[in-house]
Amino acid sequence: MPATPQTIFVAVIGVGGVGKAFLPQLHHLSQRLSQANPPTDLRLILARRSNKQLFSESWQPLNIANVLHDLDQVTQPLLPLQETIDYLATAPGKVILVDNTSDPTLANSYPSILRKGISVVTPNKKAFSDTYALWSDIFSGAANGTGSASGGYIFHESTVGAGLPVLSTLKELLETGDEVTKIEGVFSGTMSFLFNSFMPVGGGSGGKFSAEVTKAKELGFTEPDPRDDLNGLDVARKLTILARLAGLEIESPTSFPVESLIPKELETCASGDEFLQRLPDFDGQMEELKASAAKEGKVIRFVGSIDVPGQKVKVGLEKFHASHPIAALKGSDNIINFYTKRYGSNPLIVQGAGAGGKSRPWG
Amino acid sequence: MPATPQTIFVAVIGVGGVGKAFLPQLHHLSQRLSQANPPTDLRLILARRSNKQLFSESWQPLNIANVLHDLDQVTQPLLPLQETIDYLATAPGKVILVDNTSDPTLANSYPSILRKGISVVTPNKKAFSDTYALWSDIFSGAANGTGSASGGYIFHESTVGAGLPVLSTLKELLETGDEVTKIEGVFSGTMSFLFNSFMPVGGGSGGKFSAEVTKAKELGFTEPDPRDDLNGLDVARKLTILARLAGLEIESPTSFPVESLIPKELETCASGDEFLQRLPDFDGQMEELKASAAKEGKVIRFVGSIDVPGQKVKVGLEKFHASHPIAALKGSDNIINFYTKRYGSNPLIVQGAGAGGKSRPWG
Repeated sequence: MPATPQTIFVAVIGVGGVGKAFLPQLHHLSQRLSQANPPTDLRLILARRSNKQLFSESWQPLNIANVLHDLDQVTQPLLPLQETIDYLATAPGKVILVDNTSDPTLANSYPSILRKGISVVTPNKKAFSDTYALWSDIFSGAANGTGSASGGYIFHESTVGAGLPVLSTLKELLETGDEVTKIEGVFSGTMSFLFNSFMPVGGGSGGKFSAEVTKAKELGFTEPDPRDDLNGLDVARKLTILARLAGLEIESPTSFPVESLIPKELETCASGDEFLQRLPDFDGQMEELKASAAKEGKVIRFVGSIDVPGQKVKVGLEKFHASHPIAALKGSDNIINFYTKRYGSNPLIVQGAGAGGKSRPWG
Repeated sequence: MPATPQTIFVAVIGVGGVGKAFLPQLHHLSQRLSQANPPTDLRLILARRSNKQLFSESWQPLNIANVLHDLDQVTQPLLPLQETIDYLATAPGKVILVDNTSDPTLANSYPSILRKGISVVTPNKKAFSDTYALWSDIFSGAANGTGSASGGYIFHESTVGAGLPVLSTLKELLETGDEVTKIEGVFSGTMSFLFNSFMPVGGGSGGKFSAEVTKAKELGFTEPDPRDDLNGLDVARKLTILARLAGLEIESPTSFPVESLIPKELETCASGDEFLQRLPDFDGQMEELKASAAKEGKVIRFVGSIDVPGQKVKVGLEKFHASHPIAALKGSDNIINFYTKRYGSNPLIVQGAGAGGKSRPWG
């Protein structure tokens, strides 16, 4: 099969949880496009993981359905990434690099990859929530940025709200001339689950905070060390991305107030297990917060918000009336409220599982 | 200014409520694209209303900011639409026809317009909710349909949920291989407003049904004759479009059960005013429904739903528990719940004003 103008070469880096969920989607899309009129020939030509890669240097398609197995059989030593990318740039057609890793080194290479004309699609938050300099560098190299027409395209929809249409909705509001005044929501499946359990609307069965964290961990709703969720950094990274798309020059995810739910005394615990053992000592603080919210007919939720005209971003606990859509959230759902000039007092709301791969209950 | 490969010619038909809201958006987009790298030259070359048109037959851009005024000054007789479209097809570049009317004749011409290579963008529900034959004919002529690569593109996002990302969300779910099992929601700002007032969550101040209809009309939340909302046809048209996109071959908006809220005895009233005068005689039926729902801790809402695997569509009154997102809707907001295999028991929800032009509070 010679390459034609309708041939698109796809290189996938990272075949872990996200990658394993992605490959069947790519297979589905590839079959659909091959039957379109005119057909598009979507060819997987690279699958790479930390210690091996399978690269079709002749530009013939790898077998998507079998690629994980074929990758296991590879015995050659791993080519350096840079060399692989340089070779990709010589492909006889358009190339899309799909980054399913959370590798900051690869993220730092996006500007140079884009400038070689390679497009990048990724759920990796790192590049977009690091320094503002890296953000600017990426978009000045991209054909869909401020950038050069010869650059590749960059797409990162699932860096916020996973499969939910969050970034696309924000972009459409801005591109059609609406003015976004405020964005507010629950951006973490873990935090959603924790607080929907800790303080359900209408009162009821919420346990002590430490018990809810332990339960969430047992159910697979937290990172292996729950502090990686409770420090708020994951939410801060998502808010950084949204705020930048809304036009704010946010320097980094630590350049605005982020409330950590890790008691100071437990920051230095040697392990997540030790942390969970000692967390009950601090339940009193959360019980107080709960009681004071209940007195006002409110519940506590862990939210991120962006005041666009005021150029203020913050992440942390807030109280919401029981009738507020953020209070009524269920399970581990995300919710994002866009307040705009056009929509008036009732926001445009996008809500649902912030689901990543099939293997995890949320993203 | 000679036309270049980056020139796109835009023809706007209909400059009423929707058109007047659209022109400033086009102006905004045109300015933004002219500053992009490389710039795109988006040229308005036709503005047409029922009795006049302004056509730049030399392909030079009309002044968008002043086009309504300039159109008023036109004194020539109106060219037949077909002749105008034939001439548009000779433009030295890509042409987009924006149909801001609700004209069924124009809607019926979409297949032939698309086959001339002209793209069509429209909020006009008529073409997409008429016969299945017209639907098939449109998409077999479109480059983004089942169709010919030489055809134009067809975009009709705002035919359902107005500015809310509804059709794009459904398409993305399907294109990435998710399976949609059910779609359910409130698709009419009028019906939303009526039932949120008639039976608010938590009981309270809802008046008699006829009084709520009169209030909604006075506030501008209904068509001039409220029966045009109460017959359910507007919702049935939207459900027809969604169901077809989900893969069901729905013959027409009258080929599935649609509950009309117009008492049989009042279908033949000579005017909307007579209808409103006689509607109180039928309040008893709605009060009974309200009481029976309240007994179950539920509220009544006017919804449309699509059971995708069961191939069933219906429109009408349903009861919802107070904790259901459809019950908690506010004002005249729309809400659309997508239940899919990937999202599991908690749906992906899109919610907010189904707002069309600025002049009307909803769409």
